[in-house]
Order: sequence, then C-alpha cells, then structure tokens
Amino acid sequence: MEPLNESINPTIQRQLKHKTIRAFQRIDLDHTTINTLVDVARHTSSSQFLQAFSLISVTDPHIKQAIAEVSGQPYVAENGHLFIFVVDQYRNLQIGKEKGQAENRLGSADKLLAGLADATLAVQNTVNAAESLGLGAVILGSILNDPQQIIDLLGLPKLTFPVLGLALGYPDQAPQLKPRLPEEFMHFENQYQLKTPIVPELKDYDARVHEYYDLRDAHRRVDTFTNQVQRSLMAQPGKRIEILHILHKQGFLVKDPD
Amino acid sequence: MEPLNESINPTIQRQLKHKTIRAFQRIDLDHTTINTLVDVARHTSSSQFLQAFSLISVTDPHIKQAIAEVSGQPYVAENGHLFIFVVDQYRNLQIGKEKGQAENRLGSADKLLAGLADATLAVQNTVNAAESLGLGAVILGSILNDPQQIIDLLGLPKLTFPVLGLALGYPDQAPQLKPRLPEEFMHFENQYQLKTPIVPELKDYDARVHEYYDLRDAHRRVDTFTNQVQRSLMAQPGKRIEILHILHKQGFLVKDPD
Repeated sequence: MEPLNESINPTIQRQLKHKTIRAFQRIDLDHTTINTLVDVARHTSSSQFLQAFSLISVTDPHIKQAIAEVSGQPYVAENGHLFIFVVDQYRNLQIGKEKGQAENRLGSADKLLAGLADATLAVQNTVNAAESLGLGAVILGSILNDPQQIIDLLGLPKLTFPVLGLALGYPDQAPQLKPRLPEEFMHFENQYQLKTPIVPELKDYDARVHEYYDLRDAHRRVDTFTNQVQRSLMAQPGKRIEILHILHKQGFLVKDPD
Repeated sequence: MEPLNESINPTIQRQLKHKTIRAFQRIDLDHTTINTLVDVARHTSSSQFLQAFSLISVTDPHIKQAIAEVSGQPYVAENGHLFIFVVDQYRNLQIGKEKGQAENRLGSADKLLAGLADATLAVQNTVNAAESLGLGAVILGSILNDPQQIIDLLGLPKLTFPVLGLALGYPDQAPQLKPRLPEEFMHFENQYQLKTPIVPELKDYDARVHEYYDLRDAHRRVDTFTNQVQRSLMAQPGKRIEILHILHKQGFLVKDPD
C-alpha cells in the first residue's frame, strides 16, 4: 500500500486510489448516467478541435459476447455498460468530400496520432466521471487481440480504428491498490535519464508487485513486474501481430489512401 | 452555451465546463502540487500493466523556449509548469535485456499503441487532477510540429516517442465553452452509423462554432467547424509529414528493430 496524501481533494483521492474493477453488480446503468458519461466524453480536449473520435455503446448481447471472446475477458459480456472508443477520421472525410475537398491526407501518421489522442483522452475523462459516480471501470486494450473482428462486429468504415473498450458498472469487488513503478524511473527533469542497470533497483518493487498478485488471486501464477516486462519483448500470441496490417487496411499509414 | 446538468457532482460539473486555458498567472506551481500531479499520472490505468510511458518536467527556460517555438505557441515558454509525456518502451527494453531476453518486439504496432494509450490516459488523468485544484491546462499536440526537434531537446532514446505536452498554471483568462459536435454524430449503438449528407445537418453547429471563435478573438479569422475539417484533409505544413519517418527512426513500426 502506497502512502496517500489525505489532504488532497476527493477527485485526487479517488485518482490515487484508482483500481481496475472487473466484476460488476447486476444493476444496469440508467440512461441519465450513460448520457452524462457520453457528454463528458464529448467535452474532452481535442487535437486541433477536429474531434476525431466516436464511441459506440454495445448493448446487443451477441456483439457483447463476441467482444468478450476477442478480449479473452468473460466479464465483458456480463453486467455493466460497454463502450468502444474508435479513432474517427471517416466523419471528417465525409465532411470534406461534401465540401468538395479533393485531397485526403486523413490517413497520415499525423492524423492517426491525433485521432488516437482524441479517443484516448476521452476514455480517461469518462473513467474519471464514472468513478466520481461510484462506478468501477476496466479499460480494455484487449479488444486489439483481433482488430479485424472488432471492425466487422461494429461495422467500422475506413479511416476508423478501434482503440480501447471501456466497461463500467457498480463494483462487485474491492481489489488492493496495484503498486506503481517508483517515480524516479518514469519522471525526469529536462532530459530523459534512466539510470542503469535498472533491474537490481527494482528488487523491492518486484517484491511488492509479487505480493499484490499473490493477494489478488491465489489460483493464478504470481509474477513480478520485471518478469512481465521481460515477456513483453517477445512476439505476442494471436492476431496482435496483424495490427499494422489492419491499420493499413483501414487507410492509415499508407501513401495513397482512397 | 450548452445546457449543463447541474444535479451532477463537482467532478463532472468541471468536466462538462472544461475549457483550454492558454494564459497563466505569474504564480509557479509548488513542489507539492507537481508531486501530486505526477503521482496521479503514475496511478493511471496501464495496458497489460507495462507502464509504457514516462513524463518529463521541462524547467530549463531554453528548452521551454525551444518547445514553444516548435509548438508555435508563445505562451508555452511563459508561466506555468510544462510536462512532456512520452511513449516509453526503452525502459522495458532495458529491463528485458538485463534479464537476458534476446527477442525485442517492443517496436511493434501493438506495443506502440499500448504506449500511446498509457501516455495519453495519463495526460487526461493529470488534467482532471489539475483542474480539481483550480489550475488551467492546455494539451499540446503541437509538439509534433517537429518531432525530431523534441526528441533532440529532451534526449529521447530509441523506443520512446513524444506524444503530448501539457502546460498547467493558474488561469489568467476565462474563455467561453467551446460547442461540441452533437451527440448523434459521434455516439452510436452497436453499429457505426453516420447519416449522410452530414454538412447540412451541421448548419446550426457551424453557426455556434463561428460565434464562439468570434467571441474568443476579434483579431483572428473566424471559422466554422466544417471549414476546419475541410482544411484538415489537406497536407499539413512543416514537419508533420515526417512523423511516420521519425517513428521508424525511433524503432517503431519497423520489421527488425535493433
């Protein structure tokens, strides 16, 4: 457990105690709550104000089940509300075309990064709003385990791309706080300066992460942070290797988009 | 001015009234405040818990001035605190190497998107914390006007990439709320379904954006949303066209990274 500065306001107290919630009570989110969360997402900062993202509420149980299978997380199909946030340069392309713009550079790395930023900032803003209402949240990077499947399930056109899922609901679990990497390894002043070797310096941190996993689930293999990182250098299983190909297929990072 | 649901809690009230602040009072942020904000950034959700981002506090006035010139925003060099958030798979590479891992797939699209998500979620979490303390914020996508220059200024190694800047300070302006795209054009249920033609449907919205810009700055050209979007389809000026090349140079999206 890391020390918390209790003098800080409720918003920051919640942020410093943020935990991913993967089990929700059998209570649906009402329409007012969902509308409020969408409203918050819409009011997030946007790169050059191009608002290059959209969000999709997944309410169809068959689509939810299919997304749960892609993400490998059965709880996604269960309770709570599921949003999928997508980069959306398709809407901007439509607007430009209708206004007679012949050029189309919306598939550039520039515009992909702008859309990724818009979508991702909106995800976190929505998480903060949800948590202020007593809801729990899990952000689902795991939708990219099979990006083409998500694209097909949601009917995503070219110049869109699924970024993150967000499942929200009333918490049905109270996990421990997951210990974060010590500040000195991720916050620098003026110059990026990582002291090496780093693994010996992370010995205590590894022990704390190990203890966290041990408390979280006695049935799963208990791991350290540096072991997790070591595995992340290896080729990932499944269709994550196709992400760049699917980005190209959606019209991003290619020289001459349609 | 959009209607606000005043029954909502203070966190969400702030989020629905979010405005970018570009002018700060001549008051420095104290160390406790900066430490708290960094702490919040560290406690943001992270993809597969790999914590693939770092942040750099820019306090050197020469570096700040150079970043202000890259971003084309003179206020960046003035008051307030400046953070640069970066994708950081370099730290994970170091850890993996020290543990004897020969393989290195950290430059894959998968791992780039994970790092972009981690960094960007942390930016918005920091914004929400700052605003809860009465600070104003401007997120700076404009650091990518010249990514190589930012990389050189901050000494960013391979497998890192600058994502967004964040300037924070005590507000010295009170702008109007910028009207957001109506919900029906960006929030869908189960399937992505954009009704076209879209431009005629955005006539009222265009008028509201036009009025907003008119109120904001009488000296600048007043524009509509769809005009801004139309221009975004064209090739961008300057070095934004180099972003993909610089990503490759940093070891991302290439077949055989070092």
